[in-house]
Amino acid sequence: MKLPNVFSNPANIRSCPAGTVIFQKGDEALEMFVVQSGEVEILINGKAVETIGPDGFFGEMSLIDDSVRSADAVAKTDCTLLPVNRHHFLFMVDETPLFAIHVMKGMANRLRQADQRAAG
Amino acid sequence: MKLPNVFSNPANIRSCPAGTVIFQKGDEALEMFVVQSGEVEILINGKAVETIGPDGFFGEMSLIDDSVRSADAVAKTDCTLLPVNRHHFLFMVDETPLFAIHVMKGMANRLRQADQRAAG
Repeated sequence: MKLPNVFSNPANIRSCPAGTVIFQKGDEALEMFVVQSGEVEILINGKAVETIGPDGFFGEMSLIDDSVRSADAVAKTDCTLLPVNRHHFLFMVDETPLFAIHVMKGMANRLRQADQRAAG
Repeated sequence: MKLPNVFSNPANIRSCPAGTVIFQKGDEALEMFVVQSGEVEILINGKAVETIGPDGFFGEMSLIDDSVRSADAVAKTDCTLLPVNRHHFLFMVDETPLFAIHVMKGMANRLRQADQRAAG
């Protein structure tokens, strides 16, 4: 899913070399991220639970429920990220229902994976 | 969060005595449910992972990603449920961004709980 151009201004793109800690569990959260290139790993208590590639997103939970980060995010490879702050996020949900469905699909997918981990 | 009256027509309300199996893992899914009264338990492999009370909702994941049920849902007490089918769900997301945020908050809450189970 492509974000509107207003959000994908190249000036906003953040470059992260492999190994960069993007955020850590407990951090205050101001934005979510859409991966433009490369891969980001999500870790819970040091254990990788998900790898997110181009067009995937992460960090949306803290925007939704206004809470601190629940996991760590680390650049698995060199990567470029598009930050989306809370204001932009709410604007997107408001103006682009497909964006809301896209975010919900990503969350549903994570919930199913989490359920499988719990069951396994 | 209250749903628009068009969805809460009393004719649509479903009454379930305690112990009723509302759906089971693997079932085809046509609707999500908003709890009007009573409590519903969500079980994964026979283990209760969540109890949902009045104004809570469940069963949204299958509507979002068009897949089969990933858990069992059983009436913990006598309860009344308002079914919301896919058409209504997409209409609500389209017309009521607050509904989309409400659903996302519920999913974020479940993800945090699932992460805690995995970490524990």
